[in-house]
Amino acid sequence: MIIVMQVGASEAQVEAVANVIRNKGLEALVMPGEGRTAIGIPASLNNDQRTDLEAQISAMEGVSRVTQTSHPYKLASREYSKESRVVKVKNVEIGGDAFVIMGGPCSVESLEQFRSSARVVKESGATILRGGAFKPRTSPYSFQGLAEEGLRIMKEVGDEFGLVTITEVMSGDMVPLVAQYADILQIGARSMQNFPLLIEAGKSGKPVFLKRGPSATIDEFLLAAEYVLSQGNPDVILCERGITAFDRQYTRNVLDLGIVPALKEYSHLPVIVDPSHGTGIARYVRPMAKAAMVSGADGVMIEMHPNPKEALSDGSQALTPEMFLSVIEDLKRLAPYVSRTM
Amino acid sequence: MIIVMQVGASEAQVEAVANVIRNKGLEALVMPGEGRTAIGIPASLNNDQRTDLEAQISAMEGVSRVTQTSHPYKLASREYSKESRVVKVKNVEIGGDAFVIMGGPCSVESLEQFRSSARVVKESGATILRGGAFKPRTSPYSFQGLAEEGLRIMKEVGDEFGLVTITEVMSGDMVPLVAQYADILQIGARSMQNFPLLIEAGKSGKPVFLKRGPSATIDEFLLAAEYVLSQGNPDVILCERGITAFDRQYTRNVLDLGIVPALKEYSHLPVIVDPSHGTGIARYVRPMAKAAMVSGADGVMIEMHPNPKEALSDGSQALTPEMFLSVIEDLKRLAPYVSRTM
Amino acid sequence: MIIVMQVGASEAQVEAVANVIRNKGLEALVMPGEGRTAIGIPASLNNDQRTDLEAQISAMEGVSRVTQTSHPYKLASREYSKESRVVKVKNVEIGGDAFVIMGGPCSVESLEQFRSSARVVKESGATILRGGAFKPRTSPYSFQGLAEEGLRIMKEVGDEFGLVTITEVMSGDMVPLVAQYADILQIGARSMQNFPLLIEAGKSGKPVFLKRGPSATIDEFLLAAEYVLSQGNPDVILCERGITAFDRQYTRNVLDLGIVPALKEYSHLPVIVDPSHGTGIARYVRPMAKAAMVSGADGVMIEMHPNPKEALSDGSQALTPEMFLSVIEDLKRLAPYVSRTM
Amino acid sequence: MIIVMQVGASEAQVEAVANVIRNKGLEALVMPGEGRTAIGIPASLNNDQRTDLEAQISAMEGVSRVTQTSHPYKLASREYSKESRVVKVKNVEIGGDAFVIMGGPCSVESLEQFRSSARVVKESGATILRGGAFKPRTSPYSFQGLAEEGLRIMKEVGDEFGLVTITEVMSGDMVPLVAQYADILQIGARSMQNFPLLIEAGKSGKPVFLKRGPSATIDEFLLAAEYVLSQGNPDVILCERGITAFDRQYTRNVLDLGIVPALKEYSHLPVIVDPSHGTGIARYVRPMAKAAMVSGADGVMIEMHPNPKEALSDGSQALTPEMFLSVIEDLKRLAPYVSRTM
Repeated sequence: MIIVMQVGASEAQVEAVANVIRNKGLEALVMPGEGRTAIGIPASLNNDQRTDLEAQISAMEGVSRVTQTSHPYKLASREYSKESRVVKVKNVEIGGDAFVIMGGPCSVESLEQFRSSARVVKESGATILRGGAFKPRTSPYSFQGLAEEGLRIMKEVGDEFGLVTITEVMSGDMVPLVAQYADILQIGARSMQNFPLLIEAGKSGKPVFLKRGPSATIDEFLLAAEYVLSQGNPDVILCERGITAFDRQYTRNVLDLGIVPALKEYSHLPVIVDPSHGTGIARYVRPMAKAAMVSGADGVMIEMHPNPKEALSDGSQALTPEMFLSVIEDLKRLAPYVSRTM
Repeated sequence: MIIVMQVGASEAQVEAVANVIRNKGLEALVMPGEGRTAIGIPASLNNDQRTDLEAQISAMEGVSRVTQTSHPYKLASREYSKESRVVKVKNVEIGGDAFVIMGGPCSVESLEQFRSSARVVKESGATILRGGAFKPRTSPYSFQGLAEEGLRIMKEVGDEFGLVTITEVMSGDMVPLVAQYADILQIGARSMQNFPLLIEAGKSGKPVFLKRGPSATIDEFLLAAEYVLSQGNPDVILCERGITAFDRQYTRNVLDLGIVPALKEYSHLPVIVDPSHGTGIARYVRPMAKAAMVSGADGVMIEMHPNPKEALSDGSQALTPEMFLSVIEDLKRLAPYVSRTM
Repeated sequence: MIIVMQVGASEAQVEAVANVIRNKGLEALVMPGEGRTAIGIPASLNNDQRTDLEAQISAMEGVSRVTQTSHPYKLASREYSKESRVVKVKNVEIGGDAFVIMGGPCSVESLEQFRSSARVVKESGATILRGGAFKPRTSPYSFQGLAEEGLRIMKEVGDEFGLVTITEVMSGDMVPLVAQYADILQIGARSMQNFPLLIEAGKSGKPVFLKRGPSATIDEFLLAAEYVLSQGNPDVILCERGITAFDRQYTRNVLDLGIVPALKEYSHLPVIVDPSHGTGIARYVRPMAKAAMVSGADGVMIEMHPNPKEALSDGSQALTPEMFLSVIEDLKRLAPYVSRTM
Repeated sequence: MIIVMQVGASEAQVEAVANVIRNKGLEALVMPGEGRTAIGIPASLNNDQRTDLEAQISAMEGVSRVTQTSHPYKLASREYSKESRVVKVKNVEIGGDAFVIMGGPCSVESLEQFRSSARVVKESGATILRGGAFKPRTSPYSFQGLAEEGLRIMKEVGDEFGLVTITEVMSGDMVPLVAQYADILQIGARSMQNFPLLIEAGKSGKPVFLKRGPSATIDEFLLAAEYVLSQGNPDVILCERGITAFDRQYTRNVLDLGIVPALKEYSHLPVIVDPSHGTGIARYVRPMAKAAMVSGADGVMIEMHPNPKEALSDGSQALTPEMFLSVIEDLKRLAPYVSRTM
């Protein structure tokens, strides 16, 4: 931990900070700089010590800022596990050799619509079937999902086609219900910092698919994962799905692919990319899915609808079955290049 | 609703869109432009029609984008109520003539700490006492609040000093518990799109204090309010608390005061500004609180701690009791200028 | 052009706007909506008419906003030329079948350093040599480049190795000097809206390599290209180099690869990606260069330095010669997959 | 300066960095941390040492990042001058007791239009007259200004009414021409990092009004000021004019008023706020001008046009003469509250 003093901080103020540190039994290295002094603590602090010291010192007079030289996440970090985590769900491995495809419609709309979707997903060779039963919608007037009926359909269809299923859960109290039906719990971008939900998902014992919030930094993203992990659940899958930026006229979000190698370097968790939400435009899904693969992602999540024009949500970003199959074919041709199976 | 076709869209594609519109019994005005054609629908659509048409048309071939000429929120809009909403809680009015101060510590830490805080708040003439019992913390290793014990302390102290109380609720299932103790339910910035929570808060019958998400647009913010309002709860208070931007070195967030006149123009709901989170720096709270007042806000929420250096959370942005009283004095001097009482 | 009126605009205000339009000899389609009225102009306006009408109407009472249904750029648009532009410089084509590599150091530091760099670039099979003679540096205390001496070195070394050269020009009055030495004029991200420079570059007759500004929208980017094109210079090369976002801790910028398919759809100009500035991290250049290729870019610009540790600028993002050669090998293996030669 | 090593950096890598530091005759404090080691340099480095060391170390193996404990600007800093700079132009002081108003149209359109504007500015009691002769326009098809004819009109009218004049200069080679006519040189937001222009403006001997770039951090902003100051010109006036953010539907930019107290703390230069560009909406200029005053700004720049509906540029944000006079009256009533004269 390093404390940077304000310009013109008095010697007494510097000394006061150093004394707080020394009173904890730690060493304080006072480093005069150009105009401002820094104070380093050359020691490995545990979480309690860090929180405690930071809260106390940051409110002291003459202190400009307290910075950490280490990252705030532990269990999510590459230091914690040099070995990359492989999340196993039924016969599917996420983060292993195979490049994983999660496909399906935005919402489960009916048994028929979902079976049609599953048939295409199965035909493509993909192994994971997505579909929303509870839909987080910006407007209360938009379609909100079929709720438990949607979960039932998802489970039935998943079983029929032998596909692993994934669906979103929007609140902590719904975790037991959703966990009863789905193989993987998805936590949506807008819920990334829904802490009670993260804790319940952590307790569920189910793999958790965590989408990055639209303005979440990497630290905030990995700390959200840390909430799940700290409940004793090691199976967190990270998902980049586009961030909020200043130009929404051509794409809905900015897909931040540079985060893929960064997450791979700083964390041991698998990383999936969602080019459907990441661009919001069906015709840009193909190039961005390929870009995700070569940037080092472990898989992609792609929206597909048997008939996008009749989709009850997100029709403009869903692929038709033909486009979906064609994109997957493209990815299969590319997979050997990155030493991935598909 | 206006549909803009892609460049080079064929006449057949334009015609297909026009036919979808006409088949709903609506008129379609085809407007050729430079390179691209637009199609207008000169009619008042209800929500179902809008959702339906937008989903269907946006997935059609040749369509570039579908734009709405009206705002997506209804109950939150100024059209819905020309008269500004005054939220009444006990003897306090929010959105009326009086400029409202909500003060108190980030977290309820103990009976003693909270009573000290309340004494200062009362002394300042402020009417609303804030304090967190359940704390949304970025890191699972940070102090998480006293939970129900904190709520009990808050209620006891609020009653003792005759102050209206406000505290955050983080999930829908906790609404009944929190509503039992607190006068106003706060929905934090990170929960702004926690839709199950918004719905439960709407059902609670308690006034709801809704903080803007760090990257939420005005439309998204007012649609979140719409979730609460659409449950039959008219008492929503909007709060600007800073947005996420590209420079976090000097202030934690960017306080977007330009949103205040915009919210006042497009919505009838009261608007509060939180300069503590909006800047993250105790010494910038004073100028930003004053700026909030003259920009047209109905009040401010300010963090104050009897001893910021010992605060268990957010110490660097909390005012000392002396600073808090002095800022309130400053605001009182300024109030007549904006024709506000305090 | 579509005019959206404010909520509650009076009929007289609507009529006033319609009359302004009709007085120009144009048709005005009045479309009542939910709460607000829109007015469409079903005609192809020329630039003067658009500018004129927009300025006049946007200041009228009761008007909320004026939106364009067509894009504001013309010569840069795909409508202007269905055929993709191939920029030819000596024996090199940019935007043709070959995937183009532009490599070299951030700055020309000495003849020796630049010759070493050119040797590696040549060895890799790349065809374009980059190097800065005039350096735009955030701080006046950073190395500012060798100026004309740098240009001379660049030309000499380019001729020696048979490489096309590219270098940045920072102001309009320097264009003649730089054009005397360099094959391609680079306009840096911070100069994207330096309009006098864009005009002079347009007049120079040299191909212009235009980097996207760090917070430039696609419209702003293509309008900057339009400045060059409107001088009669058809040879503009667009470059995505990362945008400014909220997390600068792990990467310097966010590389916006989703812009590649969007630029390809809306413009006919070639698109290059710069993963060096786009990430600011040498070890992320490889995955992002590959991602750029599969996302549809026509080439990449990569910083390489014979000895990054001794670089006078941007050492942390420059590749060593070994890494550079290895990345190019990787791209060559990938090229057939996207039907590109290298 | 503090160097943070990568997780898992070897002892040899740490030692190598420490040796580079020691070889410069400096002390290296090695601080082991949780998972990663930091190395502090307890000394006041001059600029050459900093640049040199940072470039060298940031490219070494095992190094994660190099951070500075002091700010990169010197002459612009509060440390350099505890006393706030007062810029004197003719009989006007900027940064002194008086709150300064800069008013006038976006563009000088004709002698008649500019005289009408000046008459209103004079009548209001404002002292500085603005007007663009060379206009930086996003589109090459928009009105580009009257050029030298505009400068002549501005000078003539300024002299006639006894007003100080300010106008934008867009490139270094135009500085002598513009300096011949105008009292203050304005550098626009899009030119904030036009370094040749900053240098020429620094050499001109004229006060320089520097607008913050739309995505410039405070460090970048003050380093741009540093370019001017380092030419021996102490008269730089800083201007906040709104930053680029994610919601452009209601306001054109986000006015970042929190920067005002931050600039006042870290720099000694005067600070002006431009609520016209900061919001882009004429009816939001009044509240934001008042907010600027109470947040500690030294003045405001406000666009006014004798007839906004006929303005050739930026009509939607210009005030009418009546509104302008009324806003100034409002500010005059508020001035005593912040102990300012007007």
